[in-house]
Amino acid sequence: MIVKEVKIRVRYAETDQMGYVYYGNYATYYEVGRVEFMRSLGFTYKELEQQGIMMPVVENTSKFIRPGKYDDLLTVKVMVKELPEKRMTFEYEIYNERKKLINLGETVLAFVNMKNGRPCNAPESIVNLLKPFFNGQEKHI
Amino acid sequence: MIVKEVKIRVRYAETDQMGYVYYGNYATYYEVGRVEFMRSLGFTYKELEQQGIMMPVVENTSKFIRPGKYDDLLTVKVMVKELPEKRMTFEYEIYNERKKLINLGETVLAFVNMKNGRPCNAPESIVNLLKPFFNGQEKHI
Amino acid sequence: MIVKEVKIRVRYAETDQMGYVYYGNYATYYEVGRVEFMRSLGFTYKELEQQGIMMPVVENTSKFIRPGKYDDLLTVKVMVKELPEKRMTFEYEIYNERKKLINLGETVLAFVNMKNGRPCNAPESIVNLLKPFFNGQEKHI
Amino acid sequence: MIVKEVKIRVRYAETDQMGYVYYGNYATYYEVGRVEFMRSLGFTYKELEQQGIMMPVVENTSKFIRPGKYDDLLTVKVMVKELPEKRMTFEYEIYNERKKLINLGETVLAFVNMKNGRPCNAPESIVNLLKPFFNGQEKHI
Repeated sequence: MIVKEVKIRVRYAETDQMGYVYYGNYATYYEVGRVEFMRSLGFTYKELEQQGIMMPVVENTSKFIRPGKYDDLLTVKVMVKELPEKRMTFEYEIYNERKKLINLGETVLAFVNMKNGRPCNAPESIVNLLKPFFNGQEKHI
Repeated sequence: MIVKEVKIRVRYAETDQMGYVYYGNYATYYEVGRVEFMRSLGFTYKELEQQGIMMPVVENTSKFIRPGKYDDLLTVKVMVKELPEKRMTFEYEIYNERKKLINLGETVLAFVNMKNGRPCNAPESIVNLLKPFFNGQEKHI
Repeated sequence: MIVKEVKIRVRYAETDQMGYVYYGNYATYYEVGRVEFMRSLGFTYKELEQQGIMMPVVENTSKFIRPGKYDDLLTVKVMVKELPEKRMTFEYEIYNERKKLINLGETVLAFVNMKNGRPCNAPESIVNLLKPFFNGQEKHI
Repeated sequence: MIVKEVKIRVRYAETDQMGYVYYGNYATYYEVGRVEFMRSLGFTYKELEQQGIMMPVVENTSKFIRPGKYDDLLTVKVMVKELPEKRMTFEYEIYNERKKLINLGETVLAFVNMKNGRPCNAPESIVNLLKPFFNGQEKHI
């Protein structure tokens, strides 16, 4: 399992009139978590698209435990537990500043060849970067 | 089961550079679906909040079957299959203009008393509006 | 001058913890206004992009007179006062359900050839659709 | 004049199918700029609201010089050139990673007493924090 923690400050734009982070905005926090996870490993999602591979989301699940609040500096803990093949799964735990768990999430993304729009395998370059971490230990990046 | 169909036109703001509806924006489509579902039954979520009850989301699940595209007039089919007690569950199927299923979703919302922030039962006024429809038949509103 | 009125229902996602429509979301309302304005004239922005011309925004101005509120059915009045050449200017007045003016806006968009990324003139097809309306009278579409 | 520079990474959610940052999202970047400007001075907008004063936006102007692109680490330069009285004006220049100016903006915000919803003066606590900087020199915070 590879683990990466990312800090995100809640923006006013992301709150709703309930005074909570609007539930749809957690998808964006997950995205930021995934992107920084990849950057820590040494590649960027941007480069992946430039190489002709995109990663559309195929499934997303969220549990909303406590409200996210304006200006809170959230900690998004991103976890990858399996080497990707045709798909890659990210799990998340989001904590507020008082270290309380506020959100649990999981996203499954596919690898798609942008030329023909068809699913493909995870590029070797990515699998090779991930492989050394899957030695049975939890590794923070 | 109660069923309501709502039309939503995809906005440019909702697309991303993949040319797809950004995955987090389906949560907003679900919201529009729920709100119009309630309006068809004869009450509004706005009134509910004015009466001191809010409905935060506690769980949300989405499957992304096909991409949503800019300017498409989507059909959001909203379904309620059980009378709400402490929670209310909405299911969705979203179709594009070519009547292809592009998205499946499910949202669980809680009823919360805004005065004390604690969970409460669905207000009787809502349960009474819903009850006549739960006679074993599918009812379109 | 050509005038088009478009109805937009305020979504919960668009409110913020002040209980107002977040100020950045008016840009999206303007977009919906422009797009429906064009559709009423007989072309769509989507087709324009398919023909290889895009219209990036080059300037935007907003005055926020009164707050927009959740679930309000807003009226966006879209006005075009001049035939487009290299740029096209849209003006807006937004009214709430009580017919109070809540927002004034103006957006200037350029025409850009998507192949080379360079500014170009408004396509003749669009200018020809607009021309008959510029006869000195206000025309509602 | 007081100047604060803030870094913002462009999110995928903020792009549109043109491959640009959607024009409405600059309002959010301005917000992040304002909030971090205030935090550097020693107070937070969150505390201001907790003290019963909110700052709704009354005017916003943007010029879009060059497109913002996905994953770019933008620099938002926030400038306050006058001591606030009933209103406070922020100006912005946004630069991409290649140090090219991509956006110019200006936002005017009012001070509003949340109890009665009426405009009020900038709180003395804020004016006192700002005053020392208005000695004719440019001051980076």
